[in-house]
Amino acid sequence: VKVGVFDSGVGGITVLTALRKLLPAIDFVYLGDTANVPYGTKSSGQVVRLSLDAVSELRDRGVGALVVACNTASSVALPSIESAMRGIPVLGVVEPGAEAAVHAFRSAPEGGEILILATRATVRSGAYRKAIEELAELSGEHPPVVDEQECPLLVPMIEEGWLDHPILAATVREYVSKWARSSSPGVALLGCTHYPWIQTAIERALPGWTVVNSAQVVAEAFRARLGRDALHQLEQAPVGAIEWLFTDPHAVPAFAQDWISKA
Amino acid sequence: VKVGVFDSGVGGITVLTALRKLLPAIDFVYLGDTANVPYGTKSSGQVVRLSLDAVSELRDRGVGALVVACNTASSVALPSIESAMRGIPVLGVVEPGAEAAVHAFRSAPEGGEILILATRATVRSGAYRKAIEELAELSGEHPPVVDEQECPLLVPMIEEGWLDHPILAATVREYVSKWARSSSPGVALLGCTHYPWIQTAIERALPGWTVVNSAQVVAEAFRARLGRDALHQLEQAPVGAIEWLFTDPHAVPAFAQDWISKA
Repeated sequence: VKVGVFDSGVGGITVLTALRKLLPAIDFVYLGDTANVPYGTKSSGQVVRLSLDAVSELRDRGVGALVVACNTASSVALPSIESAMRGIPVLGVVEPGAEAAVHAFRSAPEGGEILILATRATVRSGAYRKAIEELAELSGEHPPVVDEQECPLLVPMIEEGWLDHPILAATVREYVSKWARSSSPGVALLGCTHYPWIQTAIERALPGWTVVNSAQVVAEAFRARLGRDALHQLEQAPVGAIEWLFTDPHAVPAFAQDWISKA
Repeated sequence: VKVGVFDSGVGGITVLTALRKLLPAIDFVYLGDTANVPYGTKSSGQVVRLSLDAVSELRDRGVGALVVACNTASSVALPSIESAMRGIPVLGVVEPGAEAAVHAFRSAPEGGEILILATRATVRSGAYRKAIEELAELSGEHPPVVDEQECPLLVPMIEEGWLDHPILAATVREYVSKWARSSSPGVALLGCTHYPWIQTAIERALPGWTVVNSAQVVAEAFRARLGRDALHQLEQAPVGAIEWLFTDPHAVPAFAQDWISKA
């Protein structure tokens, strides 16, 4: 039985990499909705519709669990996806991401704040802010200051393969300029599964800030969520290869094809 | 009876403006597939599917004629759209655009070449190159040199409203750098209906070149295509207002909303 990993495009590969590293005896099937990427500039109704179409394909293939690696889908469509998966365990990336950000924030020398970098749809959902506030409430601590910045052009640029391009770097600087000048650097969370591909550009644009990639935390949360018995089930007779599904195979960017052929 | 204008997003508004100016007594219904923009980075199969979904909506509303204002849809889906419209006159933008480019080329003082700036899907279709070669064959002239440049990030930037942004200008310069250095400037055709929104940036990046916006030529070709009788039919009892349809109304960019509210 395979574990499904669903993303709007190729960004979720960063989460899949972390999952494979932590759980090498599990088989994965990756579904990238390349026919409809980007999700982050679409309305929430449209993101819900597209997410349900995509995950029904994984449900019909009988996956034993599902990781929603796309932040936009996790932010606005998780309850709908959970119903559609009919009892199969589903993990989104927002809660683990919020935990990773709060953890890094507590360990940071200076107070500062938490800055969420994400797509427009994720920011508008307020999902990260809500998750961080709930974590603070649970721990009885004073909630950190949370700021959010929409970065709608980063996904198209990444899908375009402009990972090391000066225009990508200039666009990142434009989006974070307000915080780059801050006297007390804080924690910046990569709130979109595409952004780890350009983590270096983001770190350069935010000197002194702790930049958090939640991929590893998501993998750990997935292991914890399933528990030992369910994991044991999933680890029966793995094939060892990743199955790749793309709703538009001709729209998979070249840099991701390279990565896939080596995976 | 209304005339349908179909585009992948808000780019087709440039064509609609030219149509209204030339044919003020005709009513238009504009359909922007904002749920699925951009088309230009998708495979041709996907563009055909989305175009057919979109135009079936216009057919069901009983439009009397259809202008496919989207260059990507015109390049790869025009025959399919024509069948789907069942005899209703359909005009794409590629043939009129190619004519406008060839006309400007013949009037240009220096020879140079014709450069098509377009989306990836339009360039890969080779539709403009083919149309220009056919025009040369018809006139018995030596065909002009045609070059094509994919500009996949311009539509997302325009939909983002970065019309006067320095990063848009830098991206345009990046795409045309090879031709900006040419010793014999030629004719650059805006082969995507979004690009007239940024015509100034393109003209600045290509000093000495003639930049051709095909919107007006498309309107003229539409009038010629229909003929006097059909036009007379369409000009009966106009309401005078444009009907606006968007597959994702929440994804209409702010700059276009301003324009629509004034139209």
